[in-house]
Amino acid sequence: MQNIEVTRQLAAWVVGLNNEDIPQAVRTEGVRTFVNWLGCAVGGAHHETVDRALEAVKLFAGEKRAQVIGREERLDELHAALMNGISSHVLDYDDTHLKTIIHPAGPVASAILAVAETRAVSGRDFLTALIAGVEVECRIGNSVYPHHYDRGWHITGTAGVFGAAAATGRLLGLDETQMVWALGIAATQSSGLREMFGTMCKSFHPGRAAQNGAMAAFLAKAGFDSSMRSIEAPRGWANVLSTKQDYSEILDGLGRNWESALNTYKPYACGIVIHPAIDGCTQLREQLGGRVADIQSVALRTHPLVLELTGKKTPQTGLEGKFSVYHAAATALLHGDGTPTAFTDEMVRDPQVIALRDRVSAQADKAMHEDAVFITLTMQDGERIDLDVPHAIGSLERPLTDAMISEKFTRQSSPVIGADKTTALIEKAWSLETTADMRDLALSSAA
Amino acid sequence: MQNIEVTRQLAAWVVGLNNEDIPQAVRTEGVRTFVNWLGCAVGGAHHETVDRALEAVKLFAGEKRAQVIGREERLDELHAALMNGISSHVLDYDDTHLKTIIHPAGPVASAILAVAETRAVSGRDFLTALIAGVEVECRIGNSVYPHHYDRGWHITGTAGVFGAAAATGRLLGLDETQMVWALGIAATQSSGLREMFGTMCKSFHPGRAAQNGAMAAFLAKAGFDSSMRSIEAPRGWANVLSTKQDYSEILDGLGRNWESALNTYKPYACGIVIHPAIDGCTQLREQLGGRVADIQSVALRTHPLVLELTGKKTPQTGLEGKFSVYHAAATALLHGDGTPTAFTDEMVRDPQVIALRDRVSAQADKAMHEDAVFITLTMQDGERIDLDVPHAIGSLERPLTDAMISEKFTRQSSPVIGADKTTALIEKAWSLETTADMRDLALSSAA
Repeated sequence: MQNIEVTRQLAAWVVGLNNEDIPQAVRTEGVRTFVNWLGCAVGGAHHETVDRALEAVKLFAGEKRAQVIGREERLDELHAALMNGISSHVLDYDDTHLKTIIHPAGPVASAILAVAETRAVSGRDFLTALIAGVEVECRIGNSVYPHHYDRGWHITGTAGVFGAAAATGRLLGLDETQMVWALGIAATQSSGLREMFGTMCKSFHPGRAAQNGAMAAFLAKAGFDSSMRSIEAPRGWANVLSTKQDYSEILDGLGRNWESALNTYKPYACGIVIHPAIDGCTQLREQLGGRVADIQSVALRTHPLVLELTGKKTPQTGLEGKFSVYHAAATALLHGDGTPTAFTDEMVRDPQVIALRDRVSAQADKAMHEDAVFITLTMQDGERIDLDVPHAIGSLERPLTDAMISEKFTRQSSPVIGADKTTALIEKAWSLETTADMRDLALSSAA
Repeated sequence: MQNIEVTRQLAAWVVGLNNEDIPQAVRTEGVRTFVNWLGCAVGGAHHETVDRALEAVKLFAGEKRAQVIGREERLDELHAALMNGISSHVLDYDDTHLKTIIHPAGPVASAILAVAETRAVSGRDFLTALIAGVEVECRIGNSVYPHHYDRGWHITGTAGVFGAAAATGRLLGLDETQMVWALGIAATQSSGLREMFGTMCKSFHPGRAAQNGAMAAFLAKAGFDSSMRSIEAPRGWANVLSTKQDYSEILDGLGRNWESALNTYKPYACGIVIHPAIDGCTQLREQLGGRVADIQSVALRTHPLVLELTGKKTPQTGLEGKFSVYHAAATALLHGDGTPTAFTDEMVRDPQVIALRDRVSAQADKAMHEDAVFITLTMQDGERIDLDVPHAIGSLERPLTDAMISEKFTRQSSPVIGADKTTALIEKAWSLETTADMRDLALSSAA
């Protein structure tokens, strides 16, 4: 496919997309993507990572035209995009395109909510831009995954910058050539190393992708040119950053098959591999009622990756708790909780949690699927209770309901902006498609 | 060398470097690097690429604390760093570290001149920061060159961001850990594709490297953390962006062997491969005096790369003229000129130039060195004049004199900020080491 104009065809599709071209089911999933993202951005707004980044960037910020979500500060739209991209990902609690492990909303929604504050953008147009941006980043991600990720690139940053450029480009009304340039300026800023996982730089990646992608669109609008073949050229993005280049993943079925409709939302604030255990233990807690105190032992049968990634027997901090399937199972049984409150330092050191955690065992079984678990409880009276969870909640097979997304939002947002503002914000977020001017929604996300 | 702490050792060296640790010859070369860079930045200040970028970024700029060189505008220091990095490289007329083809000053000097305006920085400390930054980027470049460049990375952008971070980090007084973080935040922003050559994005790379590296230092100062092994980790910068990793190039002889002292400055505003021809033809013009009009033919014997890269027989535009060794030889013989005025649309279409150009022939000879040429003139009276140029002016063997750097500065700067301001600015630039406060120098670069 060396001679196909991949970048130009993709740009033409983004520019030509109309609101009514997108099936309602896809738009509905887009709204869910937005609501989930917004809740995460509010929830992460006061994380230390956000505080420190804000301390640095406010030195350089321009006119205060855009809201830093979940806080009082306002910044210029590019810096607001950066900050909101960081806060929406900092708790590792956002959305996942499972085929690429891209967290799609962070780079795209962060860019366009900030930019939308500076011009009259309806919720309907905003949603189309969001969906277009997510399509672009996930399709570009598909074209190089897994080789690109295996080489060490944090794909949410490297592919996300294209999504932010495309979505912002739509809000700015770029023509086809300008959209090609915007994708090119995005391509030549594409960055983010997996080495950064475990540091503040991890959430910096979606933030910077949002900011850089938006900047690419503004530069293109001003006539700043770029390669016409930035993705597919011999020295273009795909060849330089990956050993796999499958451009059919970018172009085939554009406007028919929607990657954005495959988005999933994390029910729990930890690595996705221990979600089945939390889900199953939460279900068992409901079955048991007051009898949780009578549990003698908990035996988990899981995919081997679960123990490899989350096999920490005696976590000492909240962060370590996220890497302990034992801790996660205990808090789910005791409190029905897998949200951020389950992974605090206090919870990890709670004697009751420790006592139950020490009675949890886990066995790796290659025959188990990654999103499955088999749990056997043995009660003090000798009774055995088995539970088979073939697909964890939050998987494509068992998506979060809208009510669950709202509950997740509330749990994250209420401690940050209060219950009343949270209730109003959730309602506005779900009403995205009928929002007259996105400024109102952005302002409602302030602390 | 997997277990050596490359990033930490490099950071420790940058933090611990004292002004007096740098030999005078190295400092003198650092001043030449600075003067050459400043002249180029003034010279490029009104290029269309700069105009368009400025149109976009001024929407987001913060407090007007730093000068856009060669213009009236002032921006926040990060945006000024971006703009000055673009203008200093936009004419492809800046400096070259020949071992890596890095253009060292753009990313580093652009960052620290802008940042220096916001705090009291002496010329002496500024120069040390500049040299430290150039050492960092060139040594990191050496560790991966040529594999990294061959893969398609524009190394001035990808390595330059480290130099900007290190140099800015010195001005901000980062401690060792913060400097490690700054290099890490730089690493995870490292970008720039060679596919962009021939577009406005090429000069965007050093600009963005300056801006992003400076931002990395400000983030680190605010406590934003990063990997402690961003360069050498298995998923760190060198492994992800290159198939060669020679960390001895980064650490060996630090503070004894100075890469920054190997910097070279382009005498001519075109690709370095046709510099020998321009140099030789300029020398012949001086020999001939009025007899240039009597030239019958010009025969060049050159390295094969010269014809491969600059073999355009009948250029139609100024830009195409830069890729025509025939045009370049003709303008050098007729006008003694290889500066930007030799590569205008008018000059390329000048009948006298075309007439002589059409009498220039060139022959590839694998035995010739890349910076050499052998020229044979045949005069109308049958006389033959031979000239052997073993090393072109501007090479390490025949560096530009300070007077030539000043002349190059004047030719670029006078049309932009006028002769008087140019004279004053050149004098201040050469006095870098005794400058009390860099703000004065930065302000003097305004139009």
